[in-house]
Amino acid sequence: MAKQEDKFKNVISHAKEYGYVFQSSEIYDGLSAVYDYAQNGVELKKNIREYWWKAMVQMNENIVGLDSAIFMHPTTWKASGHVDAFNDPLIDNKDSKKRYRADVLIEDYVGKLDAKIEKEVAKAAKRFGESFDKVQFLATNSRVVGYKEKGDAILKRMGQSLEKEDLADVKALIEELEIACPLSGSRNWTEVKQFNLMFGTKLGASAESAMDLYLRPETAQGIFVNFLNVQKTGRMKIPFGIAQTGKAFRNEIVARQFIFRMREFEQMEMQFFIKPGTQKEWYEHWKEARMKWHLSLGMGEDNYRFHDHEKLAHYADAAADIEFRFPFGFKELEGIHSRTDFDLKAHEEFSGKKLQYFDHEENKSYVPYVLETSIGLDRMFLAVFSNSLQEEELENGTTRTVLKLPAVLAPTKAAILPLVKKDGLPEVARKIMEDLKWDFNVTYDEKDAVGRRYRRQDANGTPFCITVDHDTLEDDSVTIRHRDTMEQKRVKISELKDIISEEVSMKNWLLKM
Amino acid sequence: MAKQEDKFKNVISHAKEYGYVFQSSEIYDGLSAVYDYAQNGVELKKNIREYWWKAMVQMNENIVGLDSAIFMHPTTWKASGHVDAFNDPLIDNKDSKKRYRADVLIEDYVGKLDAKIEKEVAKAAKRFGESFDKVQFLATNSRVVGYKEKGDAILKRMGQSLEKEDLADVKALIEELEIACPLSGSRNWTEVKQFNLMFGTKLGASAESAMDLYLRPETAQGIFVNFLNVQKTGRMKIPFGIAQTGKAFRNEIVARQFIFRMREFEQMEMQFFIKPGTQKEWYEHWKEARMKWHLSLGMGEDNYRFHDHEKLAHYADAAADIEFRFPFGFKELEGIHSRTDFDLKAHEEFSGKKLQYFDHEENKSYVPYVLETSIGLDRMFLAVFSNSLQEEELENGTTRTVLKLPAVLAPTKAAILPLVKKDGLPEVARKIMEDLKWDFNVTYDEKDAVGRRYRRQDANGTPFCITVDHDTLEDDSVTIRHRDTMEQKRVKISELKDIISEEVSMKNWLLKM
Repeated sequence: MAKQEDKFKNVISHAKEYGYVFQSSEIYDGLSAVYDYAQNGVELKKNIREYWWKAMVQMNENIVGLDSAIFMHPTTWKASGHVDAFNDPLIDNKDSKKRYRADVLIEDYVGKLDAKIEKEVAKAAKRFGESFDKVQFLATNSRVVGYKEKGDAILKRMGQSLEKEDLADVKALIEELEIACPLSGSRNWTEVKQFNLMFGTKLGASAESAMDLYLRPETAQGIFVNFLNVQKTGRMKIPFGIAQTGKAFRNEIVARQFIFRMREFEQMEMQFFIKPGTQKEWYEHWKEARMKWHLSLGMGEDNYRFHDHEKLAHYADAAADIEFRFPFGFKELEGIHSRTDFDLKAHEEFSGKKLQYFDHEENKSYVPYVLETSIGLDRMFLAVFSNSLQEEELENGTTRTVLKLPAVLAPTKAAILPLVKKDGLPEVARKIMEDLKWDFNVTYDEKDAVGRRYRRQDANGTPFCITVDHDTLEDDSVTIRHRDTMEQKRVKISELKDIISEEVSMKNWLLKM
Repeated sequence: MAKQEDKFKNVISHAKEYGYVFQSSEIYDGLSAVYDYAQNGVELKKNIREYWWKAMVQMNENIVGLDSAIFMHPTTWKASGHVDAFNDPLIDNKDSKKRYRADVLIEDYVGKLDAKIEKEVAKAAKRFGESFDKVQFLATNSRVVGYKEKGDAILKRMGQSLEKEDLADVKALIEELEIACPLSGSRNWTEVKQFNLMFGTKLGASAESAMDLYLRPETAQGIFVNFLNVQKTGRMKIPFGIAQTGKAFRNEIVARQFIFRMREFEQMEMQFFIKPGTQKEWYEHWKEARMKWHLSLGMGEDNYRFHDHEKLAHYADAAADIEFRFPFGFKELEGIHSRTDFDLKAHEEFSGKKLQYFDHEENKSYVPYVLETSIGLDRMFLAVFSNSLQEEELENGTTRTVLKLPAVLAPTKAAILPLVKKDGLPEVARKIMEDLKWDFNVTYDEKDAVGRRYRRQDANGTPFCITVDHDTLEDDSVTIRHRDTMEQKRVKISELKDIISEEVSMKNWLLKM
């Protein structure tokens, strides 16, 4: 655990030091759970967005894009259920004045029971050695069984109370469990209240005509309300998809874990409109397709897993997460949801307009079913960045910090380095840069010894270093060094464009899908 | 005027019909002054953004990118002056309950005086014919001089009153001029009040800890507060620039002219940090550089002009607009502003932190001056789209609607069309598409006669149509048709990639700068 925390702290400080992610408004001591993408971060983010867009929109004839506004008509959020049901149950401690999510307090309590079980298991495993049978132990040890049964009973009761909106019972549960405020240690709690997670604002100036607006909490609804316009003007035939990337906002009470859970974040969502009854096959299709996309980046199969939801949201008939191994454990990176016709039917009801598709093959109209893929761009950024940051021991006993970003996503593709700052080498290096910059993001660096520059580019995630030396003046050759292998090769200047292109082109990476 | 209005209506309806721009939340009868970019619009918008980014960031070694959050610490907007001074003076008509900008009511009144002058000029020009001397007439005709003097006096008084925040005098002016509500015809006005244009929201859940936030009204401040972090982590040396694109929000009272003035819009801004005293040369440099960028798109030199500001904003010591000929006349498309050290000094004052740069050449620290280029992405979209939409008379007497988008910006680069839907032609066409789609956005269309498909692609803005016919089966050749010239050429399938690439690559277009 300590090691994980260290690793995560490293990720955050490296992200700042190398110009990837800054705390927002840092000169004003920051804004909680809001971050800015710095000069390298913005390029990595752009590249991830583009890699997704190409895979979803450009490669699929039946998927088109959309860019709907953050502001939407407020009735949208009544139809979607967000006005009524997008809530967290909150409770305040009267002594510390600190606010908590009531469900998280209870889950943390159950987490402690789980920790006790783990401890018993570890103890027993040590005692019995090779002959230890964990499954049997969990099923028969009375202490462990007691913890497990207690935890299950608590979660069940909480789930039922939340479902029935019986917030008094949630409070009662907190009192019965004698849960104390982690800050003040006091058990002096307020009532539990529902708190809506949408940010509100007002449109228009005059008091009587001002309209209550929300900042969208998800991009999906922008796709649903435009479904028929896109289908008609784009002459789309079912099955077809609409994809979009864009900002969404949630007034999270407990926002944490760096850019993993932010109040302002960016989604990449695709809604796939299908014939009712075909949702099962499309669900399987998109689970597989999205996993292939992730694996194409070569970040290790072991770092991904599916998590099928047992408890489904009100709009879904099947749902799974693609989880990634973040520095703080496996967590949701992307969701694949079979949303049925819930959203389109709700918009039909609230708008009074038909949102039906006429199927020429079936010769009838229907409200399509929807299959959704939804990934957080910031989470994807964190997955890529944290997985790429590595400390390597070298043969000579020293270590190097290297950011092994997939080359297709790296902000800077190559650094051009004159071996020394004289003898005309800088001029040649600059000429190479001027030629390459039309096709790639490249940088020029002449400061410090070349070994130190290599380390700097390693830590920066640059896949190639191109070194110009005295031989270059004779034979137009340069040294190209690969970040990951540190291997160096002598190549002609005229070959550089093809060599780099081969390794960084989105086309070549997408072909691995 | 009527023709201009027709042209503009055409632009709006074509934008909807061909999947470029939809009214936002249309199924809920729309949200005023908010629009969604549809399946083609999103690609055009992306391409414009990318064309700007490449020209600013990728081509300039000393300019880097940034992606700062929409949410910023609220003190940011005190420092920038937006909390105190980003206001419109508003007045309500008590009978119509309609709200107006007081300054716009007065300016409209002066506009009517100007119209009277124009009328007198036209009358005199007709009477005197060739011998008419407009300059002399304007200087000597007593009626015209009277109108002019009256208008100037009104604007001067209004300007002074607004500067002094003497809103009572603005109201008095409206009453003295007997300005009536255009809707009710009544002169029954409320007091004039200042109304802040920023959208507000609240961060955090508990009443006592909630923080008043604003949706940023411009992206520039996100650059200023990050200036030192970028400079240090990016090891930047002055002069250097930071560029970013992103959403901004203004609660405009009178939002109009389609996507020209929206409440939610996207900016593309670059702040260039320079040594104090060099602002004049950099101002000229960026005026020229930005104009070159516009002209590289080949939309006609006559459609652009500079407008130098006489009245400067509080932060500027020089400012000019690049104006474009929109369907409703010449209007601001981009601004180039010499912002001095106003912003950085204000942030120093409000944050208590130093925002200074140590200049190794000068061996001293200073707060840099700033040169800004600021363009509205949505306005640029409207400029490109409206200028490209043309009705052409053909030799055979018919007309065609063609969207002559610069090929580099076109959403779809090529349409692949089998001449007929049989004899294996669709299969060959699809094979071509599968091969091209990795490099370009391409589409496949087999419906309707080929002439009709050409027209559809013309109206859609697709630069190339590639037609597969029976000869293709014999010799692997296809017909490639150019949208603008309608010229058709026979080429080998294997040549297609190079031909299209030559015409649409950003590199080739940027090289024209």
